[in-house]
Amino acid sequence: TSALSQFALELATGQIRIVDLTQTLSPEFPSLQLPPQFGQCWPFRMEEISRYDERGPAWYWNNFSMSEHTGTHFDAPVHWVSGKDFPNNAVDTIPPENFVAHACVIDCSREAAENPDFLLTVEFVERWEATHGRIPARSWVLLRTDWSKRAMPDEYVNAREDGPHTPGPAQGLVQWLIDERDVFGFGVESINTDAGQSFAWDMPFPCHYLMHGNNRYGLQCLTNLDQLPAQGAIIFAAPLKIRNGSGSPLRVIALVPG
Amino acid sequence: TSALSQFALELATGQIRIVDLTQTLSPEFPSLQLPPQFGQCWPFRMEEISRYDERGPAWYWNNFSMSEHTGTHFDAPVHWVSGKDFPNNAVDTIPPENFVAHACVIDCSREAAENPDFLLTVEFVERWEATHGRIPARSWVLLRTDWSKRAMPDEYVNAREDGPHTPGPAQGLVQWLIDERDVFGFGVESINTDAGQSFAWDMPFPCHYLMHGNNRYGLQCLTNLDQLPAQGAIIFAAPLKIRNGSGSPLRVIALVPG
Ligand SMILES: Nc1ccccc1C(=O)C(=O)O
Ligand SMILES: Nc1ccccc1C(=O)C(=O)O
Repeated sequence: TSALSQFALELATGQIRIVDLTQTLSPEFPSLQLPPQFGQCWPFRMEEISRYDERGPAWYWNNFSMSEHTGTHFDAPVHWVSGKDFPNNAVDTIPPENFVAHACVIDCSREAAENPDFLLTVEFVERWEATHGRIPARSWVLLRTDWSKRAMPDEYVNAREDGPHTPGPAQGLVQWLIDERDVFGFGVESINTDAGQSFAWDMPFPCHYLMHGNNRYGLQCLTNLDQLPAQGAIIFAAPLKIRNGSGSPLRVIALVPG
Repeated sequence: TSALSQFALELATGQIRIVDLTQTLSPEFPSLQLPPQFGQCWPFRMEEISRYDERGPAWYWNNFSMSEHTGTHFDAPVHWVSGKDFPNNAVDTIPPENFVAHACVIDCSREAAENPDFLLTVEFVERWEATHGRIPARSWVLLRTDWSKRAMPDEYVNAREDGPHTPGPAQGLVQWLIDERDVFGFGVESINTDAGQSFAWDMPFPCHYLMHGNNRYGLQCLTNLDQLPAQGAIIFAAPLKIRNGSGSPLRVIALVPG
């Protein structure tokens, strides 16, 4: 049997488990707030078209509005000015081969509980590799912080007068993941692949700037990362095919060995 | 090596090919038109939030609106009155195991070119099985009509004074696929899993009524079905996790043995 039919067989028999890494889209799910001088993204809203009634006797359905960066979503290189000139840098032109990739999950839940401004460093990841093995090329690096378990919206957004306080990667770690590990992208449980306070750094939003400036991707608002192994999960993360879309809400699914 | 790592290896080396079955979301993509007394779904619209300008100096992104049934999309059982009482019948509650499944692709492109009202029958599928083998339980049945290659929007919608003329399944075939083959769902290239003229049948929209009334799914507006084998492709079709959503635009990806 081929690898594909063996894969299908193990899925059918439950030897491969499926974990949904997606938050539910609803009007209550918090969206990114930027300083007021900037354009803002729409939260999710829906409007019933019919519900087995005179507007449609046999069917129920809804219209909705949101942004490319609402809920659990994918960031494409064209989202950032540093990635604007790559070919195939939008969700409709990224090669679909890139929607399936291995994941490394780095557990920083204890550190993030102690310090909401926790920054992932090269040192931390080198210690992680000593235990779990080297990050293979073309892996997603997913930051487990258990942020998805915090109370919505206040503790999740965690805003103070000086802006949001949420964990993320240090600038040096982002560059290292690209140069030394050739990663596919960076994914987080919080609203922003960058740390909440990074808007005020010398290089603002370095995960956006450097990842997209090197044609890599981002995933935000993930959940259930605590159900994944440190290595070995395969992630399906296929954004909507929005013409020249900068990103997209999507369903992120992980395949996990039994 | 496990089936999952063998699968990942074959993906990386191109022994498993990826085919994108999704149409591009844009304002020009036609959406379903119902008789005027009924509620209507929104076509895709987008509005730029910023593009590396004063609205957002380093970033480009968009807000958008559409319906759960705009573009390439998934139909959940709750979409139809016959499926409204099943547990886990909406896109946010369907078990994610159901987002990965085998596909059988039935080529009716010649028949549909000759007759836009072509109906797939039990007889036709039995002849197909004699050549390609029996439809395995829990497969998607995908109707290849090459409808996705027709000129947009007029030839694709193919409306006349008496409504749309597009191919689809006969009522008897739908019941047979459920009872005799235990299929997972039915997918098409046209805007409607049901034939264009089926609104006027004794049982209107039988594919919607019977598939959803038996807790099965639908896929509409697919493309590239001509790149799939008759059997053996694995389909990833994971809808957005819209709270109590009746369906969802999505990226549909097929994995095909090299
Ligand atoms: N950090 C940002 C700054 C500006 C625009 C968007 C973002 C995001 O986090 C995003 O990609 O959702
Ligand atoms: N046939 C229909 C009748 C009413 C509402 C929707 C439909 C669809 O085709 C759909 O599911 O997109």
